[in-house]
Amino acid sequence: MRWQDIDQQVCSVARSLAVIGDRWTLLILRDAFLGTRRFAAFQRNLGISRHRLSDRLNKLVDQGVFNREPYQQKPERFEYRLTRKGLALYPVMMTLAQWGNEWCDDGNGAPIEYRHKPCGHKMQAVMSCSECGERLQPAEVTPLVGPGLQAALDTGFNMFGNNGDAPVLPPLLQKSVDDRQPA
Amino acid sequence: MRWQDIDQQVCSVARSLAVIGDRWTLLILRDAFLGTRRFAAFQRNLGISRHRLSDRLNKLVDQGVFNREPYQQKPERFEYRLTRKGLALYPVMMTLAQWGNEWCDDGNGAPIEYRHKPCGHKMQAVMSCSECGERLQPAEVTPLVGPGLQAALDTGFNMFGNNGDAPVLPPLLQKSVDDRQPA
Repeated sequence: MRWQDIDQQVCSVARSLAVIGDRWTLLILRDAFLGTRRFAAFQRNLGISRHRLSDRLNKLVDQGVFNREPYQQKPERFEYRLTRKGLALYPVMMTLAQWGNEWCDDGNGAPIEYRHKPCGHKMQAVMSCSECGERLQPAEVTPLVGPGLQAALDTGFNMFGNNGDAPVLPPLLQKSVDDRQPA
Repeated sequence: MRWQDIDQQVCSVARSLAVIGDRWTLLILRDAFLGTRRFAAFQRNLGISRHRLSDRLNKLVDQGVFNREPYQQKPERFEYRLTRKGLALYPVMMTLAQWGNEWCDDGNGAPIEYRHKPCGHKMQAVMSCSECGERLQPAEVTPLVGPGLQAALDTGFNMFGNNGDAPVLPPLLQKSVDDRQPA
């Protein structure tokens, strides 16, 4: 059993990317979060072909990211509205925008800024710990084998057994496994 | 002038995606954040072809996301280490993982969990306001035309003028422009 076999099934990032891991899809979502809803508006804003846009929107509807709702009868026309699942992509969009602002700036400053209505300030989105509220630093976060990965590993073999077919987990995950082995 | 013409130049999300908006690239980065550094390890973990992996790694080195550092002389072999620009993608990876956990679960629970070393708890990454610290909700954040977008608009024309060639901004951005027009 190899990590890549497990990966495609259980990895959260891989699963997210199976739905949204396409440049056009991410640009459509970015526009949706800026209030765009109609086919013609997406097409005009993004300069995307009808065929390609239709393909991406249909996939996002199938995946439950958009609801398709009629806004006109003759001829019938639809709006694409973010579902709860779609709205839950907001942090992904904001972190992508933030990285672009900070690291791919062309020297003219941020193209879009954000105001947080409740506090009234212009703000940056920061990623913090749900438990203590501190900002997260990569070096301060330990990845652990969670129940979903454990289940996948258990179906293959006993991951603590030395059966010559152990998966090569990425180093930090392997370390979390090694650290919990009995002495 | 159309939004799509401005968009490709100034939008932060579009700029980010020009660097990382590719499924393989995002999976490579995900593995890098789990400690993978060597060509052969990426290849084995991801089941990606040598050609494709080489293409993606070279691009990420060119873009300053990875440093390539020798770890062996004969034959010469390299490690790919995240730079500060690369490490700054951590929030993007975490939010992608989080969405996959919450919305694309296969019923076995999270494959990877995270412990925050400073506080010692298993945690979720949450996105909050840099100013007041509250969790961000999409409906509570107003996008504003920032200096980068304003500069792009100004080079085209006076955006408040009614010259028949006004860009169609996405609705929420247009609203922020309309709201600041003098009465």
